[in-house]
Amino acid sequence: MKKLELNINHRLEKQLEFIIEIDKVKNIFRKTKLFDGNRFENDAEHSWTICIMALLLQEYSNFSVNIEKVIIMLLIHDIVEIDAGDTFLYSSERGNEQNKEKEAAERIFGLLENDQKEYFINIWNEFEERETNEAKFAAVFDRLEPMLQNYITEGYTWKKHNITFDMVIKNNEHIKNGSKEIWEFALKLLDKAVEKGYLIKY
Amino acid sequence: MKKLELNINHRLEKQLEFIIEIDKVKNIFRKTKLFDGNRFENDAEHSWTICIMALLLQEYSNFSVNIEKVIIMLLIHDIVEIDAGDTFLYSSERGNEQNKEKEAAERIFGLLENDQKEYFINIWNEFEERETNEAKFAAVFDRLEPMLQNYITEGYTWKKHNITFDMVIKNNEHIKNGSKEIWEFALKLLDKAVEKGYLIKY
Repeated sequence: MKKLELNINHRLEKQLEFIIEIDKVKNIFRKTKLFDGNRFENDAEHSWTICIMALLLQEYSNFSVNIEKVIIMLLIHDIVEIDAGDTFLYSSERGNEQNKEKEAAERIFGLLENDQKEYFINIWNEFEERETNEAKFAAVFDRLEPMLQNYITEGYTWKKHNITFDMVIKNNEHIKNGSKEIWEFALKLLDKAVEKGYLIKY
Repeated sequence: MKKLELNINHRLEKQLEFIIEIDKVKNIFRKTKLFDGNRFENDAEHSWTICIMALLLQEYSNFSVNIEKVIIMLLIHDIVEIDAGDTFLYSSERGNEQNKEKEAAERIFGLLENDQKEYFINIWNEFEERETNEAKFAAVFDRLEPMLQNYITEGYTWKKHNITFDMVIKNNEHIKNGSKEIWEFALKLLDKAVEKGYLIKY
């Protein structure tokens, strides 16, 4: 990783080296395409979009949330993929990835001094465990964005990987734990996707 | 622009159409490159990085700030470039761009219903006017990131556009209005850049 070696302000330099290191998420590409369908989306772009989604759609939360915390979770949730890679939601590898991601969090947030390392690891764990209101609500957008991208790109990823309606329901229905209203919308969107031939339902 | 035409929930559909429209910032490329130097950075990636910078470096603010507001400003500050384009910091076009950006804000945030349109236009204006503590502190990172990118890529943009040390100082010294400590660091970084031949000082 890149070291600044400026010897001006040790703590600030470590913080900026962290910023330089996490820039690598801009080369981690997801399985879904941008809404214009021209190319795959990277993790930084995905994180930016879902931060704005959470801010814009907070009125649909099942409970009141600390939106600052939700946004911070979403800003940092995919940084671990620099080491662990992007595991497809429907992959059998999912589950095995957890240890890899924990190690990644230790290494990457460990570039910071202890106070900030702990702060980020705690908030990343909170997101992963999906138990607090903020984590449940943040998870809504991590799933809603690719669903909408698939709808707009006429089922690109669903078709490419033979994803069925039942698989989408099973892997996304936790959206309702954060927002019943958004989950109801998603169900109707999926029905439309089936009707238009973007998604197969047996 | 893409319309969802689902007729499920009018307000939510307008909100998601806004999300789809602002995805276009992912195709607005800046003048500076990613830290790995491989390609230019787009506005969504830039916004993501400077949100994390603001969060990580809030301890250096000249005053206490509402970090939630700072992050929201940074998330949305470049959305207007979808219509107005990215104007280079050192371009003579800067200044003329203001009207174009105001029209862009009206059109793009105007995709939302009035309550949210006003919310975003107000926060975008606040950032642009750089008068409140939050706007001053947010502006630090909009400038610190490209400066650091230039340092790491051995002065790529400075050299390409014949930018001198004096021009960098003049166009970035408002950093000190948000963080004296970060501005001191930036001055030392610029001295190093001159020493290493990344930046010309007459």
